Amino acid sequence: MRIALDAMGGDFAPGPIVAGAVQAVAAQSDISVVLVGDQAQIEAELARHNASRERMEIVHASQVVGMHESPVEALRGKPDNSITRCWQLLAEKKVDAIVSAGNTGAMVAGGLRSRRFLKYVRRPGIAAVMPTAKGPCVILDVGANVTPKSEHLFQYGVMGSIFAKHILNREKPTIGLMNVGEEQSKGHDLAKETHDLFAASAWKDSFRGNIEGRDIHSGVVDVVVTDGFVGNVIIKLSEGLFEFVLGIVQKEVVEALEVERDRGAKAIRSLLAKYHYSSFGGAPLLGIDGICIICHGSSDDRAIRNALGVAARYARSGLNEKIVAELAANPAAMSDE
Amino acid sequence: MRIALDAMGGDFAPGPIVAGAVQAVAAQSDISVVLVGDQAQIEAELARHNASRERMEIVHASQVVGMHESPVEALRGKPDNSITRCWQLLAEKKVDAIVSAGNTGAMVAGGLRSRRFLKYVRRPGIAAVMPTAKGPCVILDVGANVTPKSEHLFQYGVMGSIFAKHILNREKPTIGLMNVGEEQSKGHDLAKETHDLFAASAWKDSFRGNIEGRDIHSGVVDVVVTDGFVGNVIIKLSEGLFEFVLGIVQKEVVEALEVERDRGAKAIRSLLAKYHYSSFGGAPLLGIDGICIICHGSSDDRAIRNALGVAARYARSGLNEKIVAELAANPAAMSDE
Repeated sequence: MRIALDAMGGDFAPGPIVAGAVQAVAAQSDISVVLVGDQAQIEAELARHNASRERMEIVHASQVVGMHESPVEALRGKPDNSITRCWQLLAEKKVDAIVSAGNTGAMVAGGLRSRRFLKYVRRPGIAAVMPTAKGPCVILDVGANVTPKSEHLFQYGVMGSIFAKHILNREKPTIGLMNVGEEQSKGHDLAKETHDLFAASAWKDSFRGNIEGRDIHSGVVDVVVTDGFVGNVIIKLSEGLFEFVLGIVQKEVVEALEVERDRGAKAIRSLLAKYHYSSFGGAPLLGIDGICIICHGSSDDRAIRNALGVAARYARSGLNEKIVAELAANPAAMSDE
Repeated sequence: MRIALDAMGGDFAPGPIVAGAVQAVAAQSDISVVLVGDQAQIEAELARHNASRERMEIVHASQVVGMHESPVEALRGKPDNSITRCWQLLAEKKVDAIVSAGNTGAMVAGGLRSRRFLKYVRRPGIAAVMPTAKGPCVILDVGANVTPKSEHLFQYGVMGSIFAKHILNREKPTIGLMNVGEEQSKGHDLAKETHDLFAASAWKDSFRGNIEGRDIHSGVVDVVVTDGFVGNVIIKLSEGLFEFVLGIVQKEVVEALEVERDRGAKAIRSLLAKYHYSSFGGAPLLGIDGICIICHGSSDDRAIRNALGVAARYARSGLNEKIVAELAANPAAMSDE
């Protein structure tokens, strides 16, 4: 399969982006990568790695969307930017998937502008994988849609569930709705309406009802459904808190040790690597007709390599066809907006 | 000062509630506690502690609001419940403060029903203290108001700032608005409108603009302003994630030690105690004409003792008078609803 990779997207691009591509191509023989961005810079990085050009192409794009630029203005003012070029390659079916660690808002806006949604899908949502005490769960949306309707959230549950089954290998994924309490009457209108949609749907047996913030990491459900505002706060808070807690553990536990301080510090580092976001590598924008993986801005080569792996697994599993089939079978998920 | 304590509120009431009261009265000579609830049960607990009755009274209430009961129905159907009795004692000015670890929704509903808000305050909000890398910050609202207006959020910033100054001893507290990105144009309408209110107000110099989830625990600001839905998710997620991370640290770091495993486990326990919510003890419902401290449902005696201490500090600092004065000086905080 062919994957377009935005070589210019990310806090440290193009260095770790190109490095990740080189590693992914070396590791998986069915992956071809199209590096999209400034040709000279990409050539220089490839030269640094003495990389083979087998299954590796470059598509030149002369402009870059900055990490903090307004997505809409940037896409309008910079027609030859690498994100737009990636979306064009997908639209022209020259690639099966696109991957970027660039401006998330611009990636989403590019997808919304393309209007290339899967049949029946109202709005795409970003699905992020998070560690829990019972293995990984998926949470969506984490930022594509900050003011969703209940139909959108219902569809996120359906898409997330199919993702959990085929990418996270959960036999019968359970779904929870993020809320401020377990009782059905809790929360704002959006939460109550979404609760009712699930409870009346063919997915009611998988639906575990409302869950609270403390339930996510205990692994109460496989799929956490929420709006893009709350989901975005959740993933960024989790990342920050994880680092904060490991920081105080380093200071107040590891440094309290007398003879095994090195062993403790090493264990902390391996724990950081194991649970770090880069171990999963990227968050798919579900609902797009094609595959779009959005990576953390600070992605290193490992994160990019893993994101390319996720894109390939996504393509192999036929996830999109399964999403369309499930939505077609669920009229509640398709009511008019 | 006199504090009414809901002896029946909390997952383990009345045991740890009465124990916390006994400790607080012993520790602080200016505190009198009115224990509200089932007289026989309270008497039995007091007898177990051989507690002096000095500065300790009982006000009988025959009913209890369950932790998962619908607040509105419970308050209506159980007129002699301990939460309602607490609010009545406050309304009659028989106590300066009320403290409960019972049903949070019922505590808030009791406050809304009383309509005893501070002058200029539109809606009370719950302020929770959270640990950060730079000392404690305060976040509000964490659950009183899940569909606030921008004026409410602005007032939460003002009230939280005064709380941070006088209770957390921050000289010039800074305020951040929880959002999905730093740029002013980010987020939903509520976030944008609230951003504009702060930027145009007398508090603009303290306002640090939008903050993201990862900024909370790094201590970027002293006061985090958000709606009650997001705030509730944040505090519960933080609690759950804190326990999850310490769990994996215990398993993957402490158990990897060979000779200093006991020392490591002990350091983890002291870290849990230091950063546990019970170390602060309770979250004030700011904006009430009086003092109302809401405690975690699973509060132990330490949490209750600390919550009574917070109530006393709140009363001594004249926080409410300062809130009224600041709101009076800020017309933007008082625009008509």
